[in-house]
Amino acid sequence: MKYETFDSALRSTWQLVSKMYNKEANKFDSTMATGFALLSIDADGTPSTTLGPKMGMEPTSLSRLLSTMEERKMIYRSQNPNDGRSVLIHLTSFGKEKRDDSKDVVLHFNKKIEESLTTEKINAFFEVMNCIKESSQNFEHFTPVLK
Amino acid sequence: MKYETFDSALRSTWQLVSKMYNKEANKFDSTMATGFALLSIDADGTPSTTLGPKMGMEPTSLSRLLSTMEERKMIYRSQNPNDGRSVLIHLTSFGKEKRDDSKDVVLHFNKKIEESLTTEKINAFFEVMNCIKESSQNFEHFTPVLK
Repeated sequence: MKYETFDSALRSTWQLVSKMYNKEANKFDSTMATGFALLSIDADGTPSTTLGPKMGMEPTSLSRLLSTMEERKMIYRSQNPNDGRSVLIHLTSFGKEKRDDSKDVVLHFNKKIEESLTTEKINAFFEVMNCIKESSQNFEHFTPVLK
Repeated sequence: MKYETFDSALRSTWQLVSKMYNKEANKFDSTMATGFALLSIDADGTPSTTLGPKMGMEPTSLSRLLSTMEERKMIYRSQNPNDGRSVLIHLTSFGKEKRDDSKDVVLHFNKKIEESLTTEKINAFFEVMNCIKESSQNFEHFTPVLK
């Protein structure tokens, strides 16, 4: 390899980005995961079952996160009218306020990056990202084991 | 934003890559974290204290991971001759074998991505990655809180 590996660049960059988002969130005794959840809940309420896959979180961690957010009065739950077995997660007015703050941080951060790059480089970046995504979905190195 | 945000591309791509590495590792009842640890331990042994920062892992998770790897006879510990309070982590011959397997997967995966891209695009990708890293290290949105 002439370069650092793609995955190591992904990992270390993502770690620095999460550190920064957590640092911003900690100023309000919050976490990046809370901000990300706030941004993933729709105005009309989001079924709790779709939130996990949307956020790429395991059910146990998600359920713990939602409990904390409920205690902090950021969200409330209601019965899903379309599915008796699932609940809808809604933002309280406090939650909406915090969602707007999270949105501000994300937009501001992304704008700062965008401003220091050419359109050509940004396009190449997203193209490489898509290539990595496709490669990881199709990649198989070792023979699958039948268990 | 004309684009998907940079952080959301990072997060979702990194999630797919980890899923793939975990899938490969699971074929041997192992995990991506184990493979990453194997690749982070030097031939002469690595102080356990430098391993956490190197891998971006919290001490508790790292200590749990190392115990599992010790049980599986991939690593052993020795006293650090340069620092009585710390231990060195070494690979056993089984660990070395597994390290070579991990290295193969990483190289093969990265080669596959590299082959489908132009040098120009790859360079732009790493340039954007560095720009995101720098931006996250200098970024501050909310006023710091004095606690």
